[in-house]
Amino acid sequence: MNPGWKSEIKTSEINALMLEAAFEAAKITTSFFRKGIAVENKLLQGFDPVTEADTQAEAAIRTVINAYFPNHGISGEEMIDQQSDSPFNWVIDPIDGTRAFITGLPVWGTLIALTYKGTPIAGLMSQPHIGENFIAIQGETAELQRGETQTPLRTSQITQLDDARMFTTSPRIFLSAETGAAYDRLEAEVKLARYGLDCYGYAMLATGHGELVVEEGLKNVDIAAMIPLIEEAGGIVTTWSGKSAANGGQVIAAANKEIYEAALAYLQPLATD
Amino acid sequence: MNPGWKSEIKTSEINALMLEAAFEAAKITTSFFRKGIAVENKLLQGFDPVTEADTQAEAAIRTVINAYFPNHGISGEEMIDQQSDSPFNWVIDPIDGTRAFITGLPVWGTLIALTYKGTPIAGLMSQPHIGENFIAIQGETAELQRGETQTPLRTSQITQLDDARMFTTSPRIFLSAETGAAYDRLEAEVKLARYGLDCYGYAMLATGHGELVVEEGLKNVDIAAMIPLIEEAGGIVTTWSGKSAANGGQVIAAANKEIYEAALAYLQPLATD
Repeated sequence: MNPGWKSEIKTSEINALMLEAAFEAAKITTSFFRKGIAVENKLLQGFDPVTEADTQAEAAIRTVINAYFPNHGISGEEMIDQQSDSPFNWVIDPIDGTRAFITGLPVWGTLIALTYKGTPIAGLMSQPHIGENFIAIQGETAELQRGETQTPLRTSQITQLDDARMFTTSPRIFLSAETGAAYDRLEAEVKLARYGLDCYGYAMLATGHGELVVEEGLKNVDIAAMIPLIEEAGGIVTTWSGKSAANGGQVIAAANKEIYEAALAYLQPLATD
Repeated sequence: MNPGWKSEIKTSEINALMLEAAFEAAKITTSFFRKGIAVENKLLQGFDPVTEADTQAEAAIRTVINAYFPNHGISGEEMIDQQSDSPFNWVIDPIDGTRAFITGLPVWGTLIALTYKGTPIAGLMSQPHIGENFIAIQGETAELQRGETQTPLRTSQITQLDDARMFTTSPRIFLSAETGAAYDRLEAEVKLARYGLDCYGYAMLATGHGELVVEEGLKNVDIAAMIPLIEEAGGIVTTWSGKSAANGGQVIAAANKEIYEAALAYLQPLATD
């Protein structure tokens, strides 16, 4: 907790900014989604598609942020960072889950986080094809908004690893044979594993429909928005060594302390941070 | 093609029945989805959850079918078959993708197929959380309906395997080391693979957002409804030996002949039917 930030900003403005930015981004992303868009490879090795939608949506989000808080910093997936002396920095990923996006699957999301001195204090994940906004502000709000419906975010009360539902982007994302093997040992203990989710797995953890997310090789933009969503819902997100996950890397997210500690036992020996 | 069936039934009635049955099933499934339902294991070995929603939705679908065509046969996932001397048989899976369902993910579907002398001639897949109905009748209709919007189903024109997007439920569903290895060799050739989709992967193939689905160990209820959807959209669905996939087993679905033949080269040597 970093309650000092509340004397420097109105939470109503954070809320309004995030929803307005998500709305503007959604107009762009849904106009490209399932439309046979061109895809280019961002990296020559590996596969990291980036679309016109990604770039345009990030520009739209930055426009909204700068209209509210022109002195804040911005770190985005697609453009260079907007430097600032402000303790507030926005961390955005216009389309998290580009592989889902380019295959028509509605499990990608637009991610918008606000950090204060490096700690995420507010986060939004939007899935505009379905019309879902998951939104959290530290100590204030944690809910899923869809149309006129608001559902509080609340993590699962399941505490046994063998009852746990786990999410990961892919059993093949792990960066070494050792971390892949540790993931496999953990997967063998849980009730079931689901792949291919990116941000949507974290959202399902925040809504109580899963107990674990385990991933490696994340960037700050992949995870910053999900941290307030999960923490305000009652869950825990850290790196495999138990440090802040705000910068990405090896990430574990759990519904509660019992699941967190049981799963961390498999992962902590391989922590690199 | 089996055009004889058109003299024995009105396609308008097939269309109306499928949409009405999907509507009735949706009332049940959406009332359970993301509600913290109880889940029981259908099989002691492996994990095959079945929910109250599954059973109630199948009963609702059967009620609609029997109201239209009381003399037709019905094969369902959850209840014993309704035997019949009619050449028409309905093949239904009220919730295909129960693992997605119990983890809150909107990539499960309600599947309703009509077969004539064993050949699927009409199919519907409904994803009611999103409000999508994919519907096809042989030689008549192939579209995605959402609200007031109808989008024709049309498979992708991408013909190179290294440009192809592939779906499978999991790289771990394959039934032997040999078939798993064949899948892995194929996955290494395609542009990207997405996991955890069940019926939703076939739907994305039918809408042109992927080029391949490869799976093993399917039941008739998993695939019958997807065959008309893919065939009417311009694609191909068979077993790995090139026979009808209407009874499940080892299934390949492809967007076009070029992708089909290129992928089949990896799979046909391991065909078991």
